Amino acid sequence: MTDNGLIVIVMIDGALRSHHMSELQLSEYISSNREKIIDRLSDWIAIPSISCEPGRSGDVRRSAEWCAGQMSEAGLENVHLIETPLHPSVYGDWLHAGPEAPTVVVYGHHDVQPVDPESDWDSPPFEATDREGQLFARGSVDDKGQVLYHLEAVRALLSRDGVLPVNIKFVIEGEEEFGSPNFEDLLITNKELLYCDAVIVSDTGMLSISEPSMCIGMRGLAGFDVHIRSSSTDLHSGVFGGAVLNSSHLAAEIVASLHDSNGRVAIPGFYDSVLELSPEERLAMEALPFHEADFRRAAGGAPLIGETGRSTLERTGSRPTADVVGITSGYSGVGVKTIVPSTANIKITFRLVPNQDPDQIAELFHAWLRPLMPEGVEVEVWEEGRVSPALTPIHHPAVQAASRSIEKVWGKAPYFVREGGSGPEEALGRVLEAPVVFLGVGLPDDNIHAPNERIVLEQFWRGLLAVGELWFDMAQTPGIRKVTQ
Amino acid sequence: MTDNGLIVIVMIDGALRSHHMSELQLSEYISSNREKIIDRLSDWIAIPSISCEPGRSGDVRRSAEWCAGQMSEAGLENVHLIETPLHPSVYGDWLHAGPEAPTVVVYGHHDVQPVDPESDWDSPPFEATDREGQLFARGSVDDKGQVLYHLEAVRALLSRDGVLPVNIKFVIEGEEEFGSPNFEDLLITNKELLYCDAVIVSDTGMLSISEPSMCIGMRGLAGFDVHIRSSSTDLHSGVFGGAVLNSSHLAAEIVASLHDSNGRVAIPGFYDSVLELSPEERLAMEALPFHEADFRRAAGGAPLIGETGRSTLERTGSRPTADVVGITSGYSGVGVKTIVPSTANIKITFRLVPNQDPDQIAELFHAWLRPLMPEGVEVEVWEEGRVSPALTPIHHPAVQAASRSIEKVWGKAPYFVREGGSGPEEALGRVLEAPVVFLGVGLPDDNIHAPNERIVLEQFWRGLLAVGELWFDMAQTPGIRKVTQ
Repeated sequence: MTDNGLIVIVMIDGALRSHHMSELQLSEYISSNREKIIDRLSDWIAIPSISCEPGRSGDVRRSAEWCAGQMSEAGLENVHLIETPLHPSVYGDWLHAGPEAPTVVVYGHHDVQPVDPESDWDSPPFEATDREGQLFARGSVDDKGQVLYHLEAVRALLSRDGVLPVNIKFVIEGEEEFGSPNFEDLLITNKELLYCDAVIVSDTGMLSISEPSMCIGMRGLAGFDVHIRSSSTDLHSGVFGGAVLNSSHLAAEIVASLHDSNGRVAIPGFYDSVLELSPEERLAMEALPFHEADFRRAAGGAPLIGETGRSTLERTGSRPTADVVGITSGYSGVGVKTIVPSTANIKITFRLVPNQDPDQIAELFHAWLRPLMPEGVEVEVWEEGRVSPALTPIHHPAVQAASRSIEKVWGKAPYFVREGGSGPEEALGRVLEAPVVFLGVGLPDDNIHAPNERIVLEQFWRGLLAVGELWFDMAQTPGIRKVTQ
Repeated sequence: MTDNGLIVIVMIDGALRSHHMSELQLSEYISSNREKIIDRLSDWIAIPSISCEPGRSGDVRRSAEWCAGQMSEAGLENVHLIETPLHPSVYGDWLHAGPEAPTVVVYGHHDVQPVDPESDWDSPPFEATDREGQLFARGSVDDKGQVLYHLEAVRALLSRDGVLPVNIKFVIEGEEEFGSPNFEDLLITNKELLYCDAVIVSDTGMLSISEPSMCIGMRGLAGFDVHIRSSSTDLHSGVFGGAVLNSSHLAAEIVASLHDSNGRVAIPGFYDSVLELSPEERLAMEALPFHEADFRRAAGGAPLIGETGRSTLERTGSRPTADVVGITSGYSGVGVKTIVPSTANIKITFRLVPNQDPDQIAELFHAWLRPLMPEGVEVEVWEEGRVSPALTPIHHPAVQAASRSIEKVWGKAPYFVREGGSGPEEALGRVLEAPVVFLGVGLPDDNIHAPNERIVLEQFWRGLLAVGELWFDMAQTPGIRKVTQ
């Protein structure tokens, strides 16, 4: 890598060529194995491991077993499923790098989001389809593709060198898209097995292919499913309409009062623990090459609105939010059904930032909701996951090693950003007492959690290259190994 | 019938006995044919003629053909289906009562509402099930049961006397539960065929079995299906949440702003044409034996709320209303799906009173909705039927004849009430230039349009008795026949 960061990339038949890249650890492996790797990813994608749908347990387990099989084939040892009350995680390790080498946990997940509305997909969601250098499928980027390039890096190095530069432990979760209800317990139970110096998480993204970035923090989450019942049965709107409470109206009032006129969450106390950006963080954020027009395009043209006085980057990165994920009430079919709906269901997700506590937010939410319920209305609130927010210090040597690896591959030092997503990263760092390093290649318009999810194949190959660089860099960087008693 | 209206009713094995009833025209017919009549009703109910579900055209047609077959068997002539662009109506007549006898059109409908949620039914919705003197099934009271007792009255009188006291024309619609989109055209096209002195509608109800009442007016209807799209695809709430417009939030704001803090419809101009009750009508309404506790029980325990300063009877009878029939937006499945929904669907029904005009209400609704839509949001509004409100003068001789028939059977003169339901009654009266007489036996807790619809069999038999009385009374009452050139 030259100092000016210039890199010449020439795309020939989808193949990445550059004089710099040819010097990278895994470039030869990619050139020789491109098709096989995509075939393996496609095989995994074909297993519809939707963790939140009750009928899919068998599929999620098949996905775990597929992953375990690949781990063994790649050369990992001690491969086994770690059972939970719901869907298994997959474990595998390789611990022969020597006592001086750091130990790295690679975290990812093998479960995926639902695919509805399926009719909006341009190709079947579980058939990986290559269109113009993008592989379209559920799980392509979130997160099977991003787990697979780590596995391929293991396979490549063990077959070439017989050794890895670091000790490595994979833990690939099966419940991430369900809010990771059992993952913290799994970490606590397996804390010794998972002892490490750093955690590498590949479940995040970058600003763009020409503007690489690294996530250094993730928002937390608190999810609720509110069920309202205003009468024992739907009522004829001609007989009762205008004289009885309508559950659809009540649901709308609740959702409409979730934000005030400044776009702020209207729950008393909601912002009390929010850590404002430091002046340095604010400057760094303002320096980001962020273009609202690009963001809006990636957002499918959605109007950009939010908390008054905050930029889009603040709104998605450093500010907590409340988003209704769905409202269902009354009749949704074709044609007229003249009822007063007796029930309504509201699914609400809060994104939390340091130092908000999901338990406290849950209390505030309940306290806010209770007085909105008129006498005679039954309400039930189901909890749908609580995840604490996470933040990794930029100056940790493992973060710096990842930054150097990205710079080598993308030709440009990464920006440091906070991401809006919520995963079990906070628990990983806290329970394993290790820094969490985010190395992710997703792009803002990858349609994750939506129809036509894709991974840009160029990003996939770069992810594989970056992983190879990262492990060698970590092996040579002082200060990564924990000082233990 | 004695003047004091006292009648002794003894229920023995579900059979109605009274010294008065035994003197009624059709009491002997009922005693001898009870089971056969219920069997016929059950056969008709077994045909799931749900007019608003696209896949049910065949079933609605089978229902029409079943009805036509029964008309012929009962002795009606000129029986045929009247085709529309959607589901056929059924016609049949008997016109041999002589030139002095009045001519009556009997209106009802053979289509039914959907049954969802089917899991809330205690017995299968299309298997008529007798429990404690109530026949449970979709269509039992709305409206197959109420059409059938007219048909049985024809069958009874033609088999006993060979003649009917009036000329009679049945027109049984197949699209009433779909908002009668083609019925006015049908009336206009068949105006000569349907020439009559009065229209009898059996699609309404009574306050209770001990408090008979007659509907003299019905609210009109304007229905809309609002489709919102805020972005081309659902978005990941972690990446975009808090910075983009959320369709669920927008839908909630629209629904929440449909009413003001006094429970009044907030659309400018909505109340401008509303005819207030006359002092006499108000007194009559206040005299009604209406018990809020009973009403709330019939409403499945729903809290009673509505327009400030108006009683429940006003709210359901003489005031216009807006009720959301359903809201659908985002994810409704089990578990967490962390999206910002890109679409929302709101179904809204307005109930209209004299002298509101559904076309003008539609204009006001569109004018109100437009500025609520932020730039960049696509909105599409589908029309779901427009029905004008209807009112029949109490003192018309045909209304008085019906009142006397009810008094003979129920032992008590009926109250006159306005109902909230909306049917094609206004068009019947206007196009056929005839008074619309409502003779209906439904009860407030019959669960029409809801799971566990039922007809109280006692009310069914009384309906049959009342029809027999009504036709003989009309034949003898002066002033019913129109004075024509």
